[in-house]
Amino acid sequence: MNLAWQQARQGQGQTWTNPLVGVVIVKSGQILAQGYHHHFGNSHAEIDALSQLTNLDQAQGATMYVTLEPCSHTGKTPPCARKLVAVGLARVVIGQLDPNPLVAGKGLAILQAAGITTRVLDQSGGLNRAYNFFYLHKRPLITLKYAASLDGKINAAGNERTYFTGPETQNDSQKERAQQQAILVGERTLEVDDPQLTVRKLTTDFPPRRLVLVRDVDQISRQARLFQSAAPIWFLSRRPSQRSWSDNVQIFVDPQWNPLRISQFLAEQGIQSLFVEGGSQVQAHFMAAGLVDRIVLYLAPLLLGGSALPIAQGIAAPQALKYQLQTQQVLGDDLKLEYWRR
Amino acid sequence: MNLAWQQARQGQGQTWTNPLVGVVIVKSGQILAQGYHHHFGNSHAEIDALSQLTNLDQAQGATMYVTLEPCSHTGKTPPCARKLVAVGLARVVIGQLDPNPLVAGKGLAILQAAGITTRVLDQSGGLNRAYNFFYLHKRPLITLKYAASLDGKINAAGNERTYFTGPETQNDSQKERAQQQAILVGERTLEVDDPQLTVRKLTTDFPPRRLVLVRDVDQISRQARLFQSAAPIWFLSRRPSQRSWSDNVQIFVDPQWNPLRISQFLAEQGIQSLFVEGGSQVQAHFMAAGLVDRIVLYLAPLLLGGSALPIAQGIAAPQALKYQLQTQQVLGDDLKLEYWRR
Repeated sequence: MNLAWQQARQGQGQTWTNPLVGVVIVKSGQILAQGYHHHFGNSHAEIDALSQLTNLDQAQGATMYVTLEPCSHTGKTPPCARKLVAVGLARVVIGQLDPNPLVAGKGLAILQAAGITTRVLDQSGGLNRAYNFFYLHKRPLITLKYAASLDGKINAAGNERTYFTGPETQNDSQKERAQQQAILVGERTLEVDDPQLTVRKLTTDFPPRRLVLVRDVDQISRQARLFQSAAPIWFLSRRPSQRSWSDNVQIFVDPQWNPLRISQFLAEQGIQSLFVEGGSQVQAHFMAAGLVDRIVLYLAPLLLGGSALPIAQGIAAPQALKYQLQTQQVLGDDLKLEYWRR
Repeated sequence: MNLAWQQARQGQGQTWTNPLVGVVIVKSGQILAQGYHHHFGNSHAEIDALSQLTNLDQAQGATMYVTLEPCSHTGKTPPCARKLVAVGLARVVIGQLDPNPLVAGKGLAILQAAGITTRVLDQSGGLNRAYNFFYLHKRPLITLKYAASLDGKINAAGNERTYFTGPETQNDSQKERAQQQAILVGERTLEVDDPQLTVRKLTTDFPPRRLVLVRDVDQISRQARLFQSAAPIWFLSRRPSQRSWSDNVQIFVDPQWNPLRISQFLAEQGIQSLFVEGGSQVQAHFMAAGLVDRIVLYLAPLLLGGSALPIAQGIAAPQALKYQLQTQQVLGDDLKLEYWRR
């Protein structure tokens, strides 16, 4: 299964809302074939592995290790579970069941009904955290990401963006962004930071949707650097727009956008992961709503002082939210700390 | 010299404003004696080591490793350098010169004038950081210490103290406190936290002076837990006092107390280290004055939200102050990060 997880990881960044899946086919102690889900819309991992065999008859009596339950439904491709039955596998070892209700045990049932020996390990290998979270909680996995000084500030006082992290942190932050399906910033961050919100230096066919929470989208400057990239932009505006927009821009109007509504909206759109990148007010609102599942904190070695912009400002949290340190990493002069909700 | 540094460390917590000093005496490849400065006012390390010899004649022709330059002045004890000459040492290896102007090279000169071979390593072994800093900069080494949430808050909103760190952090915080000669809090922290500011669980003959910065000392509640311990209390008050106070309380009046004046005042009092323990306003003032040499940050794994009390609040810092991560340590669920000024 370790090999199958390795295979699965090769699809990283290319499977969009599909899960990463890897497969290893073994017979008489020998590896016959390996495969993985390469790209959203392409063959599933099982089919990719079977296609490596010189002859499908080789699969007769073999064991397949597959990181996720084989699918049972016809989507962009035909159901894999039936194919595994057809080629005559003797045994299928499954990493974890598929939480997607279209599959959820039905793939396993097809294998068992056909007399194939099955075993479910109930292990994800650390893959597909957002995918699993999404089907379990019916909403995207929400990560709060910020770079802060030692005194808990994200910007010096004033209207200019303060750059205070090193290049290692900036690269890592791009990698984190590349793993998200949506990024969100508030209006004030758009004005002060003027970010592109793109994944630079990393190529992916599925850049995250760039979401901006605004009161009135028609007040947004057309010169914003956001518009320099063709990646999708979704404005969450409290007021409808009278303007015309280019093809990559979509406007979603709700007079009462808040974290809960944003989360529900993204769930409806099938978006499994959201990266909240500021500023202080937006962050405080996600904390107050209890909608922070994961924190990525880049701690820079400096003090910005008592009038600088705090990490969270404004609305109160009804109670303290508890987390657990998952990883820590020195990035140049900075420290990266990753926490998950307890 | 490593052995001598180990010896020196045994005096920790008992030498007050005196430096930690350790000594090893060696002859013909054999250790003849070891010693250290045990307690403020007692024998210096050199004399302690010589007293371990069965016969002072053994010192004839021997080498002494001493972590700090032997003293040249008569203080509470006679000058060590003259004693080393008298006993006939052949060679003295010195860790670092003594920055105290009463000694500062004069001890070395006495040894050299007597024909003793000397070598200075210019290494402190990590000992006496506050002592060295004090004589180099003519002011105490100032440490800012705070426990903060992941969103940079030191207390939940409101007038109640929020306890959010674990027992490991609380123990460590006591150990840090025990190594300081003075602790400072602001008036608001005294009111909200009602701290004792003592070193509990650790016994020392020299508890840190407990400083409280107040507008009018006569407004301080006589019920404050501060008064439950007999350790010295120094009120830095803007207004003079009309009250009578117990023997362990001293009032220092200055209508314009600020970090620079506090630092100068402590220097005059011979205090070599200051631990600033909050709150937000006091911390912001020390940052603004550029008077933060070291930071001890205990990071607790929770979010307190947008209306909670920030680490630093109020006065602006004229510029970002830069630090360097020195140590990091997992303490239960918390993380301890120690930074030094760059």
